Amino acid sequence: MSSEIGHKLKLSVFGQSHGRAIGVVIDGLPAGICIDEEELYTFMSRRKPGTSRLSTQRHEEDRPVFLSGTVDGVTSGSPLCAVIENTDQRSGDYAALVDLPRPSHADFTAKMRYGDKVDMRGSGHFSGRLTAPLCVAGGIARQILSRRGVYVGAHLMSVANIADDPFPLCPGRELFEKIAKKPLPVISDSAGERMAQAIEEARAELDSVGGVIECAAVGLPAGLGSPMFDGVENRLAAALFGVPAVKGVEFGAGFEAAKMRGSRHNDPFMIENGQVRTSKNDAGGVIGGITTGMPLVLRCAMKPTPSISRPQQTVSLSRMAPATLEIKGRHDPCVAIRAVPVIEAVTAFTILDILMEEKENGTY
Amino acid sequence: MSSEIGHKLKLSVFGQSHGRAIGVVIDGLPAGICIDEEELYTFMSRRKPGTSRLSTQRHEEDRPVFLSGTVDGVTSGSPLCAVIENTDQRSGDYAALVDLPRPSHADFTAKMRYGDKVDMRGSGHFSGRLTAPLCVAGGIARQILSRRGVYVGAHLMSVANIADDPFPLCPGRELFEKIAKKPLPVISDSAGERMAQAIEEARAELDSVGGVIECAAVGLPAGLGSPMFDGVENRLAAALFGVPAVKGVEFGAGFEAAKMRGSRHNDPFMIENGQVRTSKNDAGGVIGGITTGMPLVLRCAMKPTPSISRPQQTVSLSRMAPATLEIKGRHDPCVAIRAVPVIEAVTAFTILDILMEEKENGTY
Amino acid sequence: MSSEIGHKLKLSVFGQSHGRAIGVVIDGLPAGICIDEEELYTFMSRRKPGTSRLSTQRHEEDRPVFLSGTVDGVTSGSPLCAVIENTDQRSGDYAALVDLPRPSHADFTAKMRYGDKVDMRGSGHFSGRLTAPLCVAGGIARQILSRRGVYVGAHLMSVANIADDPFPLCPGRELFEKIAKKPLPVISDSAGERMAQAIEEARAELDSVGGVIECAAVGLPAGLGSPMFDGVENRLAAALFGVPAVKGVEFGAGFEAAKMRGSRHNDPFMIENGQVRTSKNDAGGVIGGITTGMPLVLRCAMKPTPSISRPQQTVSLSRMAPATLEIKGRHDPCVAIRAVPVIEAVTAFTILDILMEEKENGTY
Amino acid sequence: MSSEIGHKLKLSVFGQSHGRAIGVVIDGLPAGICIDEEELYTFMSRRKPGTSRLSTQRHEEDRPVFLSGTVDGVTSGSPLCAVIENTDQRSGDYAALVDLPRPSHADFTAKMRYGDKVDMRGSGHFSGRLTAPLCVAGGIARQILSRRGVYVGAHLMSVANIADDPFPLCPGRELFEKIAKKPLPVISDSAGERMAQAIEEARAELDSVGGVIECAAVGLPAGLGSPMFDGVENRLAAALFGVPAVKGVEFGAGFEAAKMRGSRHNDPFMIENGQVRTSKNDAGGVIGGITTGMPLVLRCAMKPTPSISRPQQTVSLSRMAPATLEIKGRHDPCVAIRAVPVIEAVTAFTILDILMEEKENGTY
Repeated sequence: MSSEIGHKLKLSVFGQSHGRAIGVVIDGLPAGICIDEEELYTFMSRRKPGTSRLSTQRHEEDRPVFLSGTVDGVTSGSPLCAVIENTDQRSGDYAALVDLPRPSHADFTAKMRYGDKVDMRGSGHFSGRLTAPLCVAGGIARQILSRRGVYVGAHLMSVANIADDPFPLCPGRELFEKIAKKPLPVISDSAGERMAQAIEEARAELDSVGGVIECAAVGLPAGLGSPMFDGVENRLAAALFGVPAVKGVEFGAGFEAAKMRGSRHNDPFMIENGQVRTSKNDAGGVIGGITTGMPLVLRCAMKPTPSISRPQQTVSLSRMAPATLEIKGRHDPCVAIRAVPVIEAVTAFTILDILMEEKENGTY
Repeated sequence: MSSEIGHKLKLSVFGQSHGRAIGVVIDGLPAGICIDEEELYTFMSRRKPGTSRLSTQRHEEDRPVFLSGTVDGVTSGSPLCAVIENTDQRSGDYAALVDLPRPSHADFTAKMRYGDKVDMRGSGHFSGRLTAPLCVAGGIARQILSRRGVYVGAHLMSVANIADDPFPLCPGRELFEKIAKKPLPVISDSAGERMAQAIEEARAELDSVGGVIECAAVGLPAGLGSPMFDGVENRLAAALFGVPAVKGVEFGAGFEAAKMRGSRHNDPFMIENGQVRTSKNDAGGVIGGITTGMPLVLRCAMKPTPSISRPQQTVSLSRMAPATLEIKGRHDPCVAIRAVPVIEAVTAFTILDILMEEKENGTY
Repeated sequence: MSSEIGHKLKLSVFGQSHGRAIGVVIDGLPAGICIDEEELYTFMSRRKPGTSRLSTQRHEEDRPVFLSGTVDGVTSGSPLCAVIENTDQRSGDYAALVDLPRPSHADFTAKMRYGDKVDMRGSGHFSGRLTAPLCVAGGIARQILSRRGVYVGAHLMSVANIADDPFPLCPGRELFEKIAKKPLPVISDSAGERMAQAIEEARAELDSVGGVIECAAVGLPAGLGSPMFDGVENRLAAALFGVPAVKGVEFGAGFEAAKMRGSRHNDPFMIENGQVRTSKNDAGGVIGGITTGMPLVLRCAMKPTPSISRPQQTVSLSRMAPATLEIKGRHDPCVAIRAVPVIEAVTAFTILDILMEEKENGTY
Repeated sequence: MSSEIGHKLKLSVFGQSHGRAIGVVIDGLPAGICIDEEELYTFMSRRKPGTSRLSTQRHEEDRPVFLSGTVDGVTSGSPLCAVIENTDQRSGDYAALVDLPRPSHADFTAKMRYGDKVDMRGSGHFSGRLTAPLCVAGGIARQILSRRGVYVGAHLMSVANIADDPFPLCPGRELFEKIAKKPLPVISDSAGERMAQAIEEARAELDSVGGVIECAAVGLPAGLGSPMFDGVENRLAAALFGVPAVKGVEFGAGFEAAKMRGSRHNDPFMIENGQVRTSKNDAGGVIGGITTGMPLVLRCAMKPTPSISRPQQTVSLSRMAPATLEIKGRHDPCVAIRAVPVIEAVTAFTILDILMEEKENGTY
């Protein structure tokens, strides 16, 4: 149950950081979908480490191999399995980790949940590396959505308290593509420069920083989703909290809404080009669990990378005594950067699932 | 699918605001659980309208009747159905609502989803009234949890930008009970007074205010939950977004974590009374989807009540033309107040579901 | 989990035989469906006891009350709850049953599963009485299906080794209606007479008889369902084994197919009125989990009523010693008779669920 | 959805007959389970083709490779992915199949469901080859169960109307192992010889035969499972109909029960070694969806292999005209033989899932 999600379209992620391979099975894809592998690989390369000074230098090729579900690059209707081999794995300090849990890593909780036999080398199944298969699934979903005129994009809304410009009321495909090509996925280049500097400073001080990712989906019809527990927000939140380091999810004005009065928060309806629209979008495109037809806008709070090089206070589980831990190796000083395409991927996959499921609404 | 949630323990909510009755079916309760109906009713009365000047004057008795699942107040193992009759319903302006959707209400999206036949009298199935059956389910869950030493409590963390004191590192049953007895469920009485004043002001200006609810669960063992999509955060978020007006959910430091450096955010491990603990709890009691054994802490952003008495801009769906809407009747100027026990209820129900499901972990 | 079924359309049954009420919540019905309550009641009366000498004399009115989900007899899109009060309940020998489990009843297994607090008065949640809410759900599904040209019917294929005529290759609405009006739902009246006689004989000898029910659905398009675990057979079987007394489910030739050679079993394809058909239907309308467009044909083996008036050998659970049990009261000498509309109901509900879910196939 | 099953323990099968690889992801296995790969391979070799004259000569190595979920042969708690490469694939007559659907194969229904892009080379995802990954999952489940004293075994109950001896009231591990080692998995060697002869005759006449498989699980406690839709029968049936060629599933006396009187069918309770038992087992070890503690006994009807070498009547889908088809190549004249371990595998997997899920029953 734990690594699966979706209703009509289902994904099941497998793999450990230092195992033989990681991958994903996607069950429920329609037949006849052409997968553009180069576009998929371009999308996936946005989360790849080693592409800039601001992320870890671990080298991963991460080109997915399709074991099933396609013939000559076209889906066949049967479950698609994509596998990515682990080529750069090293397992040196496995034993130490088992005894000295890294603060704010899953070492301790995984051990409490699964016992001593859990494989936590490189964080095992909890590793950020497992977001690569999520990007395979989300990358395919993005292609299907874009052919229907639905586009999903994201940017670094803030890093280390430095804010990017927010999305405009109706962001579009061009903006999403422009952001995606930048080394730091931001709207404002000057904000991006200050972010880069703050990240460099944190790294120099053997520290890390957190950030907020804003993601939008445009082109969705009104009327998608269901009330109460099967709404668009419920399903996106359930999926997004599956991305490592996400500690909060909000839609539209989100936590800002809690500070507003109703007269300011309510989105007035208007007619535009013969369509019902709202003149602003504090709802984030969803009311009562159902899409309004305005852009879907969500934000994820990403905690700072827990792997920092400074000495940290922990305990020895074998001795049940205080201990000091120094985490070796190179780590992303800001996981939020590489998480941007992951949030896009999870959002796209979930939206496609909802879109496929809801097709019959009102027409039966 | 839409109004059901849970894995091992499942709830299915039914009813419309102005229909004959509302209720809930709970499937999966163990047999032999004694339900204290008075305690349940006391809990439910915390969300009842009409108990203070700060909430709507609509009168509802809301005493649940158990149609099945119990014998002499003790669960029998079969599905429990509890029903609450709608006694105070009035359906006057139903037709108007259908044509003039209320801003930031589900009128428009429900119509797009279900067509003209949807019953939106009093917001229908989208009404806050449907949180009463959630409180039945959550109230029963609370009783079961408390007999195991797990306690769930919540307070108004902020209203209209006025902040309550935060929960202490390890809040307890006494604090929860003390908060629950106050007219405004807060820790700091002076903050509560200022909140009450701000709410009164908003009401006097025909407006409403939002708020943040903080909820904690103490007494949970470490090791509950699963990685990725079946984690404690995923499941709680999926459930909590089912409560009307919730626009954001965060755990531990949440969106604040995004502003921190790792050296500040990481929770150092320590030994306390022979147990592994952390000296602070920015993780909110959950890492990698699994409980740490520290208190589970979450926060929900509640938008301001969309029903305000000021004239608002909307559209006539029949004429596809701009229109002005004045919402009649009395409404809660701050839905966050009555939502406090609802958030507790949904949290308690979800935690019990996880607790029941995970019992075999590590022991198989 | 236990009393719920369905994917897109979900039903949740509640109630105990001797509790206050029994009922069902149906989640996922489209809005705007007109429910013909008289037709529903006529359908439900087919499973009502007390309508012939051949069934139990327990009197039940069993008229469902709709608590939610409809306005003026039309579905509103929100979950529908229908409740049937228990008026004729008597709980005299409850205590005895707990100690002396009735052979081939769920008394013993329920106690092992739920402990002493399980409510087994009148078989509790395991009672055949719980099939009344199933008929509410299935009766509504039948109405929706028939408006789409899909008809579901069933007959007593055999009772006490006396065989009815089988369904013709393509049975139709008229035949289904004709069967439904007979006191014993059979095709051949002479077979029906012999069955009635055999049932009377069994009753006179304080015994009971089993039977086989054959159910067909016509008007289904080809291409419904999915391979492997989500096929039409998987889903129907999972639902049908929920009907008390069902001990076997087969499709098409079923267990007879196991005796055939391939040359006889294979259904040759042919063209008829521009449609691909098969000249016979040993597949029962489903291959690889997916409908062929031929009538869906299934059969359920119903065990003989376990409640017989003869003395039976059991054990006293308190004394862990052999004991003799005499079951008092009047019972159906052949549960298969009243189960005919129940099998229709469960089949219709499941087919509607599949039909709703699969609407987008091939068109996405 | 289509190729996944399980609640607490979940499997997701992927692959097409002529694709790159087939495999399975198992989510929910506890950590610390030692997988005996040789035992697994021995189990899997029972379904391998080419091991006797009575099955197809297609050569497959079928040794699964574990991509994730294990470290040094021990499960780590994270999802296990096992892959089997397709080495002996040939895709010659793919085009012909698309136009001339093979009678009683999924060619036609798959095309109606998925359109022209479905990959039906070698039956694609519908192929019996996909039962190899099921055997990986079931083979692992068998190992876990046997360490708990639960044993699962099966035999060919009948082939071409020739009956094997039935299982004794309480079959055991020794009998299961003895059967598993025979070329034809039967209890009576003389029945086996006659079966072999009948199969040979059918093959010589370019034909095929069906059969019935009987499967038993011993060592299960009483009280497993839940009433109505989540019972042991519901879940096993839902899984077993996922095995290609299964057309019927029955428990205990099954369809024979329908011919019995209650006085003969009811299983009398008795005390044996301080345990409540029944003196016979027509219930097949399950009443009301819950295990009785007696052996679980089920039977699957397997249709004759639809691939026969005789000319068959079909239609050309492109010309919508009658056509004759001759299926080339070698095929199993009796799929029931190699299906015996598959039925064991699916039964074992489902039982383990139920056992894991139900651990907390009665104890919460």
